[in-house]
Amino acid sequence: MDKENLSVVLHSPGDLRLEHRPIPEPGTNEVLLQMHSVGICGSDVHYWQHGRIGSYEVKKPMVLGHEAAGRVIKVGSGVKHLQPGDRVAIEPGVPREMDEFFKTGRYNLSPTIFFCATPPDDGNLSRYYKHSANFCYKLPDSVTFEEGALIEPLSVGIYACRRAQVTLGSTVLICGAGPIGLVSLLVAKAMGASQVVISDLIAERLAVAKELGADFPLQVKRGETPEELAKKVEQHLGSQPHATIECTGVESSIQTAIYATRPGGVLVLVGLGSEMVTIPLLSAAVREVDIRGVFRYCNTWPMAIAMLASKQVNVKPLVTHRFPLEQAMQAFETTRQGLGVKVMLKCDPNDQNP
Amino acid sequence: MDKENLSVVLHSPGDLRLEHRPIPEPGTNEVLLQMHSVGICGSDVHYWQHGRIGSYEVKKPMVLGHEAAGRVIKVGSGVKHLQPGDRVAIEPGVPREMDEFFKTGRYNLSPTIFFCATPPDDGNLSRYYKHSANFCYKLPDSVTFEEGALIEPLSVGIYACRRAQVTLGSTVLICGAGPIGLVSLLVAKAMGASQVVISDLIAERLAVAKELGADFPLQVKRGETPEELAKKVEQHLGSQPHATIECTGVESSIQTAIYATRPGGVLVLVGLGSEMVTIPLLSAAVREVDIRGVFRYCNTWPMAIAMLASKQVNVKPLVTHRFPLEQAMQAFETTRQGLGVKVMLKCDPNDQNP
Amino acid sequence: MDKENLSVVLHSPGDLRLEHRPIPEPGTNEVLLQMHSVGICGSDVHYWQHGRIGSYEVKKPMVLGHEAAGRVIKVGSGVKHLQPGDRVAIEPGVPREMDEFFKTGRYNLSPTIFFCATPPDDGNLSRYYKHSANFCYKLPDSVTFEEGALIEPLSVGIYACRRAQVTLGSTVLICGAGPIGLVSLLVAKAMGASQVVISDLIAERLAVAKELGADFPLQVKRGETPEELAKKVEQHLGSQPHATIECTGVESSIQTAIYATRPGGVLVLVGLGSEMVTIPLLSAAVREVDIRGVFRYCNTWPMAIAMLASKQVNVKPLVTHRFPLEQAMQAFETTRQGLGVKVMLKCDPNDQNP
Amino acid sequence: MDKENLSVVLHSPGDLRLEHRPIPEPGTNEVLLQMHSVGICGSDVHYWQHGRIGSYEVKKPMVLGHEAAGRVIKVGSGVKHLQPGDRVAIEPGVPREMDEFFKTGRYNLSPTIFFCATPPDDGNLSRYYKHSANFCYKLPDSVTFEEGALIEPLSVGIYACRRAQVTLGSTVLICGAGPIGLVSLLVAKAMGASQVVISDLIAERLAVAKELGADFPLQVKRGETPEELAKKVEQHLGSQPHATIECTGVESSIQTAIYATRPGGVLVLVGLGSEMVTIPLLSAAVREVDIRGVFRYCNTWPMAIAMLASKQVNVKPLVTHRFPLEQAMQAFETTRQGLGVKVMLKCDPNDQNP
Repeated sequence: MDKENLSVVLHSPGDLRLEHRPIPEPGTNEVLLQMHSVGICGSDVHYWQHGRIGSYEVKKPMVLGHEAAGRVIKVGSGVKHLQPGDRVAIEPGVPREMDEFFKTGRYNLSPTIFFCATPPDDGNLSRYYKHSANFCYKLPDSVTFEEGALIEPLSVGIYACRRAQVTLGSTVLICGAGPIGLVSLLVAKAMGASQVVISDLIAERLAVAKELGADFPLQVKRGETPEELAKKVEQHLGSQPHATIECTGVESSIQTAIYATRPGGVLVLVGLGSEMVTIPLLSAAVREVDIRGVFRYCNTWPMAIAMLASKQVNVKPLVTHRFPLEQAMQAFETTRQGLGVKVMLKCDPNDQNP
Repeated sequence: MDKENLSVVLHSPGDLRLEHRPIPEPGTNEVLLQMHSVGICGSDVHYWQHGRIGSYEVKKPMVLGHEAAGRVIKVGSGVKHLQPGDRVAIEPGVPREMDEFFKTGRYNLSPTIFFCATPPDDGNLSRYYKHSANFCYKLPDSVTFEEGALIEPLSVGIYACRRAQVTLGSTVLICGAGPIGLVSLLVAKAMGASQVVISDLIAERLAVAKELGADFPLQVKRGETPEELAKKVEQHLGSQPHATIECTGVESSIQTAIYATRPGGVLVLVGLGSEMVTIPLLSAAVREVDIRGVFRYCNTWPMAIAMLASKQVNVKPLVTHRFPLEQAMQAFETTRQGLGVKVMLKCDPNDQNP
Repeated sequence: MDKENLSVVLHSPGDLRLEHRPIPEPGTNEVLLQMHSVGICGSDVHYWQHGRIGSYEVKKPMVLGHEAAGRVIKVGSGVKHLQPGDRVAIEPGVPREMDEFFKTGRYNLSPTIFFCATPPDDGNLSRYYKHSANFCYKLPDSVTFEEGALIEPLSVGIYACRRAQVTLGSTVLICGAGPIGLVSLLVAKAMGASQVVISDLIAERLAVAKELGADFPLQVKRGETPEELAKKVEQHLGSQPHATIECTGVESSIQTAIYATRPGGVLVLVGLGSEMVTIPLLSAAVREVDIRGVFRYCNTWPMAIAMLASKQVNVKPLVTHRFPLEQAMQAFETTRQGLGVKVMLKCDPNDQNP
Repeated sequence: MDKENLSVVLHSPGDLRLEHRPIPEPGTNEVLLQMHSVGICGSDVHYWQHGRIGSYEVKKPMVLGHEAAGRVIKVGSGVKHLQPGDRVAIEPGVPREMDEFFKTGRYNLSPTIFFCATPPDDGNLSRYYKHSANFCYKLPDSVTFEEGALIEPLSVGIYACRRAQVTLGSTVLICGAGPIGLVSLLVAKAMGASQVVISDLIAERLAVAKELGADFPLQVKRGETPEELAKKVEQHLGSQPHATIECTGVESSIQTAIYATRPGGVLVLVGLGSEMVTIPLLSAAVREVDIRGVFRYCNTWPMAIAMLASKQVNVKPLVTHRFPLEQAMQAFETTRQGLGVKVMLKCDPNDQNP
């Protein structure tokens, strides 16, 4: 084990540094991990560029990264289900209190939750990182570290599709073919959705979606009204979709999502946009289209690992770029430019495999 | 049985007439009813004044009335569960097709549903009226005709509270203390809600709400921001409400409702306002406050009758005015002026009792 | 159109005849169908051999058959969504009354429901058959008639998996690898189950299950205790299954199913056995293993068609034998001997294709 | 504060002693409580008499008691929501691990949960007791200590009614009018049940039930068959009950419960009887009567406090006997003899009020 712990630290908007931090000591119920693969998320880039998301503001240096997998190298005295050598995927949110949200199975809503790389909590884009053992999940041999790291974005898709009640024979509209739209597509299909329309402004993204299994890629043209788009969705499917997963956060797309969804259906809001939006709420209300938000996810890692182990979902094509941890700056710049789908940082100098 | 059938017929906006119509003949699965008590709803007045609600437009003369109870005087050959003499409450919506909505238990969403006094379907503000026997529910002796007629507005409250998942110990915010707000209050309490805040602009309405069991009447003052009102709600309850039932349809009230509701809670939209509204959707989304509309109701009559028979809910105080059918014009004028809570028309000249 | 209507009619136990019946005339909301493919179900054979199932007794001659698809050749005056030439799958259960079960979306529980080939209601193993248009579902060109006929057994699997709450990453135990166990397997996988154990006494049936996607075929040996079998299931999966679908109705298998299921999981009873059984109910109760029965199915045809059209489920390998309608006796004898999986009768003399 | 800690300790079957134990020191997230009121439960008496319940066996001396309320006198350094002087009700089950059950909101199923007076975990029938602060709930001034202690049995009723999906207008059968049957009755009514039948062998218990609000007390006579009893239940209600809560654990009563429940309804098993029982499972299965067990409860204290504070439920009449802690032996003997409903031990020598 090294003495130094190379980490990607954001000091202030625009000021991202590679620097050494002390190697942490795991507490009673924690494990120390040698990090292997950490994906870069849009939120990491947003903090780097703007220093804040909503009310979360970077006020002191913070390590980035929360899509991660690594190897256990030390365990606290209270840890029973893990031991050194275990390969694990990391769930970045760890509730700090046994409050009403945790007790009722919705710990993602706990206001005091720890969350990697949401200020002021440090993330795990480092050589070494310690985490609550209860939120580290052992990977079977058949699941790679990178697949383990991708469980984080995959969890957004799982949670969105669960909130959308996607099931056997569902028809689904997904607005936006970025990484979250794509994992939602993969999950919807794995849950039995019969037909998925996915919309985006950019043809290249829709081409990726088509390769990943989308039935109807729908390119949105500037100037089309939400009503017109909703009508196109219905024409593709033969009827309105049971569920819509909105991943853009854009006002006009939320409008489209409302008009498009079938009476009695569900619209899930994943994309985050402006605080105030103007929407045809009456149309949703009188047709009983439920509007549900998602805040991150909860209880998704075990089922994600089960899916990956049983080869029901293939997330490997999502990784389009890889950089060693030392080249984190290039990796962030690549993500900022919107190149490819997912950029992966390889934190173990002795093992840069997927 | 008379030969003539005095009815309240709307010919065009503003042109409401008392006139005679033929007494209808019940079909195979229908019953002919001698009407006893019919309440006037805000929608009846709206059609009278404006000739339309949204896309529903009065294009030919239409009998008004849909909050009704009466006595069976003739049954079709296929009717088994009713016989002449039975006292019944009328569910005004009758699905015409066994479509996907009906088959899955959400028949209120069926696009071809028959609905009393929604154009072009006639209502039941008449001496005699025929209806699908399957949507007439026998009243026990302990339940009066007027209680039977009040099941219609009560159903809106039942359905709203059901969609809001009100249960034992729930805290509830109800926006608006009109008839729908009041029945929602009664139902929420009957379902076990521990504390109910009800808000309105008008002190008199809040006084009625307090008498009916509201824990915290909250008078809204012009100029108060939605955030300020939400904070007041939280102060009254000691925490944010689990469920909010919005009965006004006013944009600022919907905003208040979003800010006020607890993370993981539910906001039900009962009041209908403008097609487009500007709301803090992001606040609902990231706190997973589900937004659910209601379109009328379904499957509420049996439980409403059970409630009334067991005296768990007392709707009798809601009736503040009574008029014989012959004085329908005065009754409508009284409702239009917003006097009292519920105006009841008495259609049986030989029995004007409650 | 012929004048005669060759039909498979059960007169009394053991007395099955091929005879001519009049071609029926469709009512207002009915369609007349030229039958194409009808599968033979275990219940058809049971009625043939024993004349009764539980309290259902064949007291007068009854046409058999309820797994069926055909072509519309005439429509009643009230039918809008179908026209002559349409290829349809037939849902055999048609509620006769709009009772509380139908209104709440559980029409399969309606005590007065019509059901093909459940005495005294005639089935559809005929050249011509009329049925409620609302319970005939149009097949897209990409779905064959035989697939359409197989929607009936598939529906049992869909409904069982839905009641079992099978979802993404679920682990499932299926007891019994007969036709119903096999369709439950196909559906569980399509709903996202990660691992399925399927048990049976007969190796050949398990071999078919393995080919259809079972992860762990488990051959039950006479003399093994339910506790031992439950332990084996846990060893295969690494933990107890989330859901168990019991398709045998055998007492010892129900016992195994209870012991095997995970705390908080669900056991669905599909197989029907003796009225009284002795089971470790306490073990289910204190571990909160819910025990749910299924009675046929409801609301499954649309999602089944969506699945078949999108090629998410392949039921074609289930058909192992085909006979023209004229050879119905050989077909029934083949089924009685338990040969193959599904025997299909071909009712259209001009089109014996799948 | 005393130096000595008088406690009721079970050494072996039949050997119950009042003895002094050290006053415990609260850990970081714990509070030390001066106990006020502790109810005696049937399970306390069962351990005293038999030394075991199922696989739980008293192998070393164990303090009894788990229906308790007291006053905080010391708080651990990590405790934020409580302070010395606070009056609290104690939830006796505290999960030790953040396992799948805890994370999904069903912590009562966690196999490693701590539970007061379930061997080997000590209960709280003592002068002083320490407990996890997260499972101590502050009582408002309007709720007495004894009401606080009664939240434990009340929770069994809340959880049973929740699992039974009792709601507005439900009809309910409760088998057994002991303490658990009575709290289930109170809760069912508070949740909106319109009519409750409660059955028992003993007239005196039914008289108490009637006083507490039961609509139809049904005295069971030796020799009546389950089918006959089920028929009587239906006659009282006019139809079969939506939900049945079985609180006796007796085989014939479980049989009655199955026959009595409406198709599509729910049977909840609260009473614990023999490991193996013989029941008409087929009747439950084909009528889709779901059979659900309950293991203790979870997430009930906050709503119970809300109910008590809002005076929606009155549990005070349940307390029929009170003894100071020093007279614990008489208190246990009284409970063993089945006298009254609930026996309360008063642990604070300076405050023996309710």
